[in-house]
Amino acid sequence: MYSFRNDYSEGAHPQVMQALMDTNLEQTCGYGLDHYCQEAVNLIRRLCDAPKADVHFLVGGTQTNLVAITAFLASYEAVIAAHTGHVNTHETGAIEATGHKVCAVRSPDGKLTPALIEFVLSEHNGSEHMVAPKMVYVSDSTEIGTIYSKAELTALRECCDKHGLLLFLDGARLGSAFTAPENDLTLPDLAALTDLFYIGGTKNGALMGEALVVNTPNDHFRWHMKQRGAILAKGRLLGIQFKALLENGLYFDIARHANEMAYRLRDGMAALGYEFPVASPTNQQFPVLPNTVLQQLQDKGYAYELDHVVDDQHTCVRFCTSWATPVEAVDQLLKDLAACK
Amino acid sequence: MYSFRNDYSEGAHPQVMQALMDTNLEQTCGYGLDHYCQEAVNLIRRLCDAPKADVHFLVGGTQTNLVAITAFLASYEAVIAAHTGHVNTHETGAIEATGHKVCAVRSPDGKLTPALIEFVLSEHNGSEHMVAPKMVYVSDSTEIGTIYSKAELTALRECCDKHGLLLFLDGARLGSAFTAPENDLTLPDLAALTDLFYIGGTKNGALMGEALVVNTPNDHFRWHMKQRGAILAKGRLLGIQFKALLENGLYFDIARHANEMAYRLRDGMAALGYEFPVASPTNQQFPVLPNTVLQQLQDKGYAYELDHVVDDQHTCVRFCTSWATPVEAVDQLLKDLAACK
Amino acid sequence: MYSFRNDYSEGAHPQVMQALMDTNLEQTCGYGLDHYCQEAVNLIRRLCDAPKADVHFLVGGTQTNLVAITAFLASYEAVIAAHTGHVNTHETGAIEATGHKVCAVRSPDGKLTPALIEFVLSEHNGSEHMVAPKMVYVSDSTEIGTIYSKAELTALRECCDKHGLLLFLDGARLGSAFTAPENDLTLPDLAALTDLFYIGGTKNGALMGEALVVNTPNDHFRWHMKQRGAILAKGRLLGIQFKALLENGLYFDIARHANEMAYRLRDGMAALGYEFPVASPTNQQFPVLPNTVLQQLQDKGYAYELDHVVDDQHTCVRFCTSWATPVEAVDQLLKDLAACK
Amino acid sequence: MYSFRNDYSEGAHPQVMQALMDTNLEQTCGYGLDHYCQEAVNLIRRLCDAPKADVHFLVGGTQTNLVAITAFLASYEAVIAAHTGHVNTHETGAIEATGHKVCAVRSPDGKLTPALIEFVLSEHNGSEHMVAPKMVYVSDSTEIGTIYSKAELTALRECCDKHGLLLFLDGARLGSAFTAPENDLTLPDLAALTDLFYIGGTKNGALMGEALVVNTPNDHFRWHMKQRGAILAKGRLLGIQFKALLENGLYFDIARHANEMAYRLRDGMAALGYEFPVASPTNQQFPVLPNTVLQQLQDKGYAYELDHVVDDQHTCVRFCTSWATPVEAVDQLLKDLAACK
Repeated sequence: MYSFRNDYSEGAHPQVMQALMDTNLEQTCGYGLDHYCQEAVNLIRRLCDAPKADVHFLVGGTQTNLVAITAFLASYEAVIAAHTGHVNTHETGAIEATGHKVCAVRSPDGKLTPALIEFVLSEHNGSEHMVAPKMVYVSDSTEIGTIYSKAELTALRECCDKHGLLLFLDGARLGSAFTAPENDLTLPDLAALTDLFYIGGTKNGALMGEALVVNTPNDHFRWHMKQRGAILAKGRLLGIQFKALLENGLYFDIARHANEMAYRLRDGMAALGYEFPVASPTNQQFPVLPNTVLQQLQDKGYAYELDHVVDDQHTCVRFCTSWATPVEAVDQLLKDLAACK
Repeated sequence: MYSFRNDYSEGAHPQVMQALMDTNLEQTCGYGLDHYCQEAVNLIRRLCDAPKADVHFLVGGTQTNLVAITAFLASYEAVIAAHTGHVNTHETGAIEATGHKVCAVRSPDGKLTPALIEFVLSEHNGSEHMVAPKMVYVSDSTEIGTIYSKAELTALRECCDKHGLLLFLDGARLGSAFTAPENDLTLPDLAALTDLFYIGGTKNGALMGEALVVNTPNDHFRWHMKQRGAILAKGRLLGIQFKALLENGLYFDIARHANEMAYRLRDGMAALGYEFPVASPTNQQFPVLPNTVLQQLQDKGYAYELDHVVDDQHTCVRFCTSWATPVEAVDQLLKDLAACK
Repeated sequence: MYSFRNDYSEGAHPQVMQALMDTNLEQTCGYGLDHYCQEAVNLIRRLCDAPKADVHFLVGGTQTNLVAITAFLASYEAVIAAHTGHVNTHETGAIEATGHKVCAVRSPDGKLTPALIEFVLSEHNGSEHMVAPKMVYVSDSTEIGTIYSKAELTALRECCDKHGLLLFLDGARLGSAFTAPENDLTLPDLAALTDLFYIGGTKNGALMGEALVVNTPNDHFRWHMKQRGAILAKGRLLGIQFKALLENGLYFDIARHANEMAYRLRDGMAALGYEFPVASPTNQQFPVLPNTVLQQLQDKGYAYELDHVVDDQHTCVRFCTSWATPVEAVDQLLKDLAACK
Repeated sequence: MYSFRNDYSEGAHPQVMQALMDTNLEQTCGYGLDHYCQEAVNLIRRLCDAPKADVHFLVGGTQTNLVAITAFLASYEAVIAAHTGHVNTHETGAIEATGHKVCAVRSPDGKLTPALIEFVLSEHNGSEHMVAPKMVYVSDSTEIGTIYSKAELTALRECCDKHGLLLFLDGARLGSAFTAPENDLTLPDLAALTDLFYIGGTKNGALMGEALVVNTPNDHFRWHMKQRGAILAKGRLLGIQFKALLENGLYFDIARHANEMAYRLRDGMAALGYEFPVASPTNQQFPVLPNTVLQQLQDKGYAYELDHVVDDQHTCVRFCTSWATPVEAVDQLLKDLAACK
């Protein structure tokens, strides 16, 4: 039975694997200083219309988040995040382990707004007795599937400028966000509006890898990477993959597929009468299902993730699609769901 | 004009100073291993009815909190605190700087309850992807002046036992809490109900110093102290002061005075029609005053602390009394306040 | 021109790549909890004759070292290493960034001995004023190519037992060490003699990956991994690779080839009169060459690493071979070297 | 029997205690922002001929060292110290606990030289794979009693300038260093030659306290202090003490006395035939004594500190004098020593 547990259940997209095969026996220097990484850097700069940006390749999301945050903050500085933000919930205190406080604020849709940021700031008095919030962390798409519009991100940028804050966008699921119908953001927008952001590979076609675009200079970023064990010896593996993903639009083509499968699943479930507390235009869908139905799906072998308990008899769960999800798998799921009692 | 800004505006209680003078030229060994510290330890064990407790003397509250928390937590473990808790707000990220997350939860009265603790736990799934909450941090009196009853603390203990949590009580203002009329807790209660707690000296008669009572063994606590710069070379200074404060009840006598001054101030302000959003039975009082009145008080030279903005025209401020507050100073303040327009 | 700069200039061994291709579209659960990882774990347990060992797969050496060390040490505990040890020199303070001191001691051959360990211990008095050395870190092969005999490792184990120390062996180049003619250690020996060690994949045939074998229980090791960004989302990639490398002896076959190429290079250089200050039976060779000769090699396009300056006219450099080094490349280098003036 | 164990066996100098008594009931604001601290700051600036220096008061040496080092270093930067340096040996890894490596180098007399610093630098290649040494830590007097001349400190400054390093001088025993006959350094010299240094109070007449003079701007130094629990609530206690010590030269007068007692002890022991492996012109003296003699001294009740084992029958020990050491105590010790068999 096809698993909808997450978007990293398979290996890499076949074209990515082929690129790794084609280059496998070539010798290059290590640590991401090879020509493939350089070509991927140049490509990303071009796509972002950001010729001066630094681009670094890291292996995974938590690693990228912790290196990026600690590299830009002094020890008494803190990062503001939505309560649902990955750095606040699902990284086992990785940010705090580098010494920094995450100032979390509850948000109904997983997104930050200038008002939420200013609420956090209002609880800090600027004195040496409190941390100094210095960075804003947002995810696009968010951990609950929502996305930012250009107007929203622009407002965040203005808020950050007003208060001297850095803006960091976690793009672990950027492909899905950018191929949602309502998206109006582009890579050049992100390069212009954020201090740093990343293009996630792990959850969209790569074996592993995140491409971090740093628009605000940091001369010693690679020192921070190395200190946290985040420089890959065969760094070219990341450059080769991002080159394959980005040079002909593959990255967005496959993300679009993931979204289409998610909408098909969403619409099918809605037609069966199930509700989605938060509307998600991306590849994570969070329906509320009766526990009896969930049990029947499990019995049939389906995998998904628990999100939260709604009441004694209902649970909100996550179904996740990916570049690899076949349309037949979605249809089969809907058919099996329709058959549940 | 007398300052009500805080409870550490003066030096030490004269009897404490006298004890320091009397012993000043005596030679002892360093680092708190002297006979005065040992006598203070024995006295505290006796007062707590806890003959096996470890007692450590530290210089200040933030230092005590950060050492105590990091000494008892593994790096992936977190501490639960009220959003207003000192460790969450006024320590410049000291806990996070030792690598640990503070899981903060909003509480209307600055106190934690089993329900609030279990709410935090419910947001953690016990997997390796999330921090493991392992300790509960409470303050008595709290940062907004409220206190715990024996029933409330017993309920916290039961909640902690049920979930395998440690209970740590910050007693920076324990004297004021314990001499409030509604208090029904005793030192033996604290020793029985918490894993560790401290008796605050800085805010109640000492030059500086907190006496940490550790009821759960930790063989290397002094290693943690030293690593954080928290072993005082002339450690006896702390032992001598706690001996002076505790051996004849001075500690509680002077705390009672601080409370009485606070009640006189509170009742006088209430009689003038001012409101106190949270009822405080201790030496911190938080009235809401019109900004115009505050300006007049300031012009007269009064010092207090801002707590939070209520609306455009009103601010909630803190007036703090201490062992040293003269009754005349309170009466003068009330008289001056009554004269404000 | 073939590069002898390091042993991670190419991708993965073709059989490893094939295994990744063969499994690429299969769905598995994430984070190393899949059946491939489980099979690799079982295989490693069998090869180590250690049915109860925990096995964890991590991406690279620095990451493995920092997670392993911090997971086993209390904050006041330190790790003893040779001055040349990777954790002391080439990790940008990664161990210190987790809060732990590396107690380094000079060793002529890159190896630790009971005498060196006891020298470090003799400089620590066991009081709370000094770190408590708790772990011994060794590499096999070492950073300068030498290896441990079974007698030497047994002596280290006895020394560790005597002083209550943990023994951690960095096996980033374990394949090369184990296939040296003078080696008499086996995987079961390592499992029996160390508290934890790893089988390095990155430098011997894998795209990336280290298999850490933990013989001393640590219930929360995966929490430490996650907190340091060291759980790979598609963890199966590591399991699949180690299975391919270890199930038919490929790992040792290809390491033996790397060594043979190193010996051919070493013997050829020695025949040309060049000296090797430290005898290395493994895939890293450190000849002393005149700077004029090095310049000529560079001009021809050869890549190697500087080790240290010997005098104004001579430099000790590292030539590194790997599973992928062709015999022709070695012969060409020797021929070109012979032609240098 | 008088204890020569250390220079913090008594309380404070009587004039310091009197200053605390005289000001005890005055109200001031907290955290070192009071007028006494400001007066002490102004006095120190004047004595240092450094009107723009920042001056911070901290409670003890380890605390001062860890705050000063972490406040000035990025996380990948390291501090160079003599192997005997306090930060390397006697602080339980406090510097590493803030994330920074201490690069220790053996020095025969406890002092650093440009050659030793450059030796450490030569072992670092400036790449992202190694820590970047950024600060030099020296003590004056050193942990083994030696002192720096103006020429030596000037040479260190030039070396630091050449290599872009900060120079930090631990003056826990600065009084003793500055009143040694061979000293030619002054406070203005220190302010001109170092980036930061401190005037130690704990070991020369204060209850506790170190006055850190920061000549290189650091806007958020107090944030670092607070985060490490190093802002004293009643900060005025430190200002009052330093004012009393420094305003009429008391600090140097009493240090001179300590030195004179040390010389009397040293010369008396030398006359008895005992040797001092390292010549110390300050208040710590390190003779080598037969173990049989040490046993007799102990039996008589004398206290000193073990330094290191010389051979089976001899130990190098430390005798420490202070502002409080009576001449009679020295003479009695010498008499008792002469009577040992």
